[in-house]
Amino acid sequence: MDDQFLLTNKTAVTLYEDYAKGMPIIDYHCHLSPKEIYENKQFANITEAWLYGDHYKWRLMRANGVEESHITGDADDYDKFLAWAKAVPMTIGNPLYNWTHLELQRFFGIYELLNEKSAPAIWEKVNGQLASGRMGARDLIRNSNVKVVCTTDDPADSLEYHQKLLEEGDFDVKVVPGFRPDKGLELNRDSFKSWTAALSESAGIHIDSYDAFLKALEARIDFFHQTGGRVSDHALDQVMFAETTQEEAGAIFKKALNGEKVSVEEEAKYKTYTLTFLGEQYAKRGWVMQYHMHAHRNNNERMFTRLGPDTGYDSMNDEPLAKPLVGLLDVLERKGSLPKTVLYSLNPKDNYTIASVTGSFQGGGVPGKIQFGTAWWFNDQKDGMLDQMKALANLGLFSQFIGMLTDSRSFLSYTRHEYFRRLVCDLIGTWVEQGEVPNDMDLLGGIVKGICFENAAAYFDFGLDEKGGGLLAASNQNSAR
Amino acid sequence: MDDQFLLTNKTAVTLYEDYAKGMPIIDYHCHLSPKEIYENKQFANITEAWLYGDHYKWRLMRANGVEESHITGDADDYDKFLAWAKAVPMTIGNPLYNWTHLELQRFFGIYELLNEKSAPAIWEKVNGQLASGRMGARDLIRNSNVKVVCTTDDPADSLEYHQKLLEEGDFDVKVVPGFRPDKGLELNRDSFKSWTAALSESAGIHIDSYDAFLKALEARIDFFHQTGGRVSDHALDQVMFAETTQEEAGAIFKKALNGEKVSVEEEAKYKTYTLTFLGEQYAKRGWVMQYHMHAHRNNNERMFTRLGPDTGYDSMNDEPLAKPLVGLLDVLERKGSLPKTVLYSLNPKDNYTIASVTGSFQGGGVPGKIQFGTAWWFNDQKDGMLDQMKALANLGLFSQFIGMLTDSRSFLSYTRHEYFRRLVCDLIGTWVEQGEVPNDMDLLGGIVKGICFENAAAYFDFGLDEKGGGLLAASNQNSAR
Amino acid sequence: MDDQFLLTNKTAVTLYEDYAKGMPIIDYHCHLSPKEIYENKQFANITEAWLYGDHYKWRLMRANGVEESHITGDADDYDKFLAWAKAVPMTIGNPLYNWTHLELQRFFGIYELLNEKSAPAIWEKVNGQLASGRMGARDLIRNSNVKVVCTTDDPADSLEYHQKLLEEGDFDVKVVPGFRPDKGLELNRDSFKSWTAALSESAGIHIDSYDAFLKALEARIDFFHQTGGRVSDHALDQVMFAETTQEEAGAIFKKALNGEKVSVEEEAKYKTYTLTFLGEQYAKRGWVMQYHMHAHRNNNERMFTRLGPDTGYDSMNDEPLAKPLVGLLDVLERKGSLPKTVLYSLNPKDNYTIASVTGSFQGGGVPGKIQFGTAWWFNDQKDGMLDQMKALANLGLFSQFIGMLTDSRSFLSYTRHEYFRRLVCDLIGTWVEQGEVPNDMDLLGGIVKGICFENAAAYFDFGLDEKGGGLLAASNQNSAR
Repeated sequence: MDDQFLLTNKTAVTLYEDYAKGMPIIDYHCHLSPKEIYENKQFANITEAWLYGDHYKWRLMRANGVEESHITGDADDYDKFLAWAKAVPMTIGNPLYNWTHLELQRFFGIYELLNEKSAPAIWEKVNGQLASGRMGARDLIRNSNVKVVCTTDDPADSLEYHQKLLEEGDFDVKVVPGFRPDKGLELNRDSFKSWTAALSESAGIHIDSYDAFLKALEARIDFFHQTGGRVSDHALDQVMFAETTQEEAGAIFKKALNGEKVSVEEEAKYKTYTLTFLGEQYAKRGWVMQYHMHAHRNNNERMFTRLGPDTGYDSMNDEPLAKPLVGLLDVLERKGSLPKTVLYSLNPKDNYTIASVTGSFQGGGVPGKIQFGTAWWFNDQKDGMLDQMKALANLGLFSQFIGMLTDSRSFLSYTRHEYFRRLVCDLIGTWVEQGEVPNDMDLLGGIVKGICFENAAAYFDFGLDEKGGGLLAASNQNSAR
Repeated sequence: MDDQFLLTNKTAVTLYEDYAKGMPIIDYHCHLSPKEIYENKQFANITEAWLYGDHYKWRLMRANGVEESHITGDADDYDKFLAWAKAVPMTIGNPLYNWTHLELQRFFGIYELLNEKSAPAIWEKVNGQLASGRMGARDLIRNSNVKVVCTTDDPADSLEYHQKLLEEGDFDVKVVPGFRPDKGLELNRDSFKSWTAALSESAGIHIDSYDAFLKALEARIDFFHQTGGRVSDHALDQVMFAETTQEEAGAIFKKALNGEKVSVEEEAKYKTYTLTFLGEQYAKRGWVMQYHMHAHRNNNERMFTRLGPDTGYDSMNDEPLAKPLVGLLDVLERKGSLPKTVLYSLNPKDNYTIASVTGSFQGGGVPGKIQFGTAWWFNDQKDGMLDQMKALANLGLFSQFIGMLTDSRSFLSYTRHEYFRRLVCDLIGTWVEQGEVPNDMDLLGGIVKGICFENAAAYFDFGLDEKGGGLLAASNQNSAR
Repeated sequence: MDDQFLLTNKTAVTLYEDYAKGMPIIDYHCHLSPKEIYENKQFANITEAWLYGDHYKWRLMRANGVEESHITGDADDYDKFLAWAKAVPMTIGNPLYNWTHLELQRFFGIYELLNEKSAPAIWEKVNGQLASGRMGARDLIRNSNVKVVCTTDDPADSLEYHQKLLEEGDFDVKVVPGFRPDKGLELNRDSFKSWTAALSESAGIHIDSYDAFLKALEARIDFFHQTGGRVSDHALDQVMFAETTQEEAGAIFKKALNGEKVSVEEEAKYKTYTLTFLGEQYAKRGWVMQYHMHAHRNNNERMFTRLGPDTGYDSMNDEPLAKPLVGLLDVLERKGSLPKTVLYSLNPKDNYTIASVTGSFQGGGVPGKIQFGTAWWFNDQKDGMLDQMKALANLGLFSQFIGMLTDSRSFLSYTRHEYFRRLVCDLIGTWVEQGEVPNDMDLLGGIVKGICFENAAAYFDFGLDEKGGGLLAASNQNSAR
């Protein structure tokens, strides 16, 4: 993992060093805590930074035979770190092997490999740096050359810390909220009634009808917009589509609110209507709509009961999605209200399907309006990223790709952008080597800069100058795109 | 994109130069217009040849932010060309980048890269050549060393221009019709009734029953056969299978003809019975049956209303197909009436499934009787072609592959055969490099010639000599195969 | 196909020569005949050894246009061999090309390529060696450095030859039975009633209820366990899941036993309940449970009627499996009774889905408890194996992989382990070349040895010393894992 890590040819090295490396980062989708950013969270030790919430690592530790006590249990922080250190050499071939060492190199200047033997010294070195006071959440973000952090937030959230960051105004990275109304779509979950109450309270709207519910959602979209929000996100674990009227959707809504079980058909109708309504709102405001499809979550009920969600017990869904996905997009397109949209699937078997669907809804003079989103979660590794990029290139315009996001709960994950950028450069360099693409550094360098930063700067209405990253006066300059 | 384009090793270069390059072309599936061939259509400019009907290019232009006026709208031909020229550098990684330049090189001797800067000069050069009178439809076909062109035709079509070409007899390329009865299968479409009337008229058979309908179809098969037709083609956007009796199929037929909506189950039954009937007819005449599966068409209703079908708004279907496909083939096999069959899917996730299905119906002493068809449409690019070829090689006999077709509406698309052949040679060359295959040029060169031309010459009953391509006296010499 | 066959870099060569090559084999899943092993079956000629039962070869011969008489018919053994020899050069790119020559090299010291010309001499040479009396079934196994052979057996089987081998005690390879109760799960097949009677007789339990049926199954599990069995296997051609009570499952069981047709929903319920019961039994005894998913069998009814099952007429199923598979595993996990489990799918589109599912059920301190099984059947080739290994590495722990099995009916198939091991070494070597993994031979060599042998030795409770392969006194030392 030296300078040429993942770069297998000279063109790739030049593209990375001269064009990709220095580009800032727009992290348009992540799960960082705005509170921890606001408070410039400090880490007591590397276990806190690495292992307290990272279910990617937990899965591998479990697969390596580590007892749960040393993963999510009450073992000592050092012992947990040691269990991970022992596992690391066994993770060769997995992206965590490379991420772990990239993070040690880039954030802590440690070039040793982590294993049982090196663990004690690395524990000391890293913890020493963490204790310096110069390694808080804000430092880690700033040192990664990040311009925008877009978090993932519930519509009922007060956005207290986003507001405080805005008011305070002395963090030179824009921290904006991402609107994720999953709990308002999942009307068969126990949380539906209580969530609707929370929405009602946050919006200051008494929700006694579906109409009021939609008004409350719209009010929160406005509130997010005022707080800098320009992105929404939806978890479509199963993609459903069934057209209906507002009347019927409203009757289903009431049924669910009364605690009655709603059928699959009814769920599809309710979701279709509500997603369409939301899509129209996003389009009206120049927002970007994200669909994260085909996660199959909380597979292990025993562990879910014990640890809750997002603890490493998820997998991919593998049902067909072409028909319902086309249905959802087409309804909005028919209304002239299809917003800029990013489509992700957790299952790589969907790559070519999605890449082909995006091509059916491009238009209106917006470059790359419908995006095939970067390799997500389990696909966030070399093969997965290359597969996504090749599918995109083969079926659409790679040059208009808005590139990488972090999707992480950890402030140390920004090195994933380096990993991604190296692969982008290597892919293009390999095309050049094979005579498929001309060795024109102006053209290719420009495309690399686009994918690393400039395309996202132009695509999202975050108020950034497309070229440089300075904050613009008019925050919605891009909303006409 | 020099002589060694796509050829990464010496064996590949030798195979391409000494064996593949000089082989003629059998274009056994395309969408060229027989009228334009007959009339030796001339092109006023490169926009007419490139952009009037090519929805591949339209999709990429839309994705690049080009306004519809410059794609299908009323902008000036030069402005449309310029919009495409500007987009071309942004298409790196997409097959259109390579196709565009291959076409400029091979047909027009232009080795510059197309972009905004080079556009004006290239516009002049190409148009000058097009105006020479030596670049008509027939010239483009003949200069591409094509022996057979098999078009795609409606059973109700008069085949007027095929007939005229036959009568005229002075075009040394065989132009034969391909039988595509989709409109007779899609009984839930509005066109069903009017199409049945057209079939009735063309066949001279009064269609007052399903039995008469089948008789009319058979009459048209005979007519196509007399006009040189030896190939049928079916678009199975969704593969359906449900066995039934002729009686029940007939009742469903009548229902549809009366304008009643037919259920999914009924549609499956009707299609199964009708496809089985047609398969038997094809088998009886030594025809080849093609199934083009898993397109998901006309996704964008707004644009469909404006532009109609085949305008760049299609995607892949991703439903399961193993069960219904096996069902359709097995019914014919049981009757001893399974014709030679080529199976294509638009979704690359189906590659291995289809390759495994073909193996279940080989037999009867016919080499490669059931073919896994070459990478289709969205898959018509390097990765897609290699994936298809590897799936075929891993599960069946690559050496018996009938190879490439053009599937194009453009007379300039024959360079795709060069692109394909280079990949065939590179794949085999790579196997040699890695010690998996012996460096036996007689064996490998023979296999290359087979895949480029000879296998198709033997497989299709087009009346070609397997080795040389001369027209044989007995047009059905191969029908016993 | 020299010493460096499939090894494309120096690290790979070192790993193969110094670590992989000398490792013994644990063949934890195959279809060898215990009777033939016991009787040290001799082969009259190479056709008997190669072509009598190998439907992989039959498929390719059919695809090459060979008449059925020369495949499964009554043609002379030499003529059948010649038909295969003629086909061999046409199989380049298919794994059988390499397997054929590896078997000739390793077992018979023949380094010529097989084709029509070399066939007569090779026929003589091989048959001469087969007639030596030193090439019986036991010799072939012993010379392949095999420590354990786990066959595939019906619960109603008497295990006569396993017992005889145990009693005799002079074959230094452990031959153990594998418990495969498919016929007890497939309650819609004609065989269900007669099979239940056979089970009843073998277990000595009168089966007049579902309860008695389960007791009989349990008795046979105990009998297999006493005979050295530690592995079960299930063919889940379609993965079904529907929870129910024992009462309802029992009612469905009775219905089927009475010869009534059982609905799909009922079948799912019956299978879910029975599989759960069996899983609990396996877990209790420290067994490993295998699910072989998504074969689509006996596609060609005409040939099935003539030749029966396993004759080369199978394909892949391509339905979704994430939901039902997660359901089956979760029910067992909830009961605390999920055994060590190996998941295979015949369809490579399922690779990432399955790799992600395994990660949701790891735990309990067992390294690699839930395994993504090695590339199966149609995937048993270079691309298929690499795809499986990369999916495993990207989503889980490659280092904990239990590696290759033979899954063969032929005693000559052990060279597939060499093929597999070369790919394992080449994959790791390629990671090293690309700087993704350190060039630490102790670490990598240890991982290679693990994947080739030691992981399986530790995973399966076959009574083997993890390091050396000697038989341990306590046969169930591993059952606590």
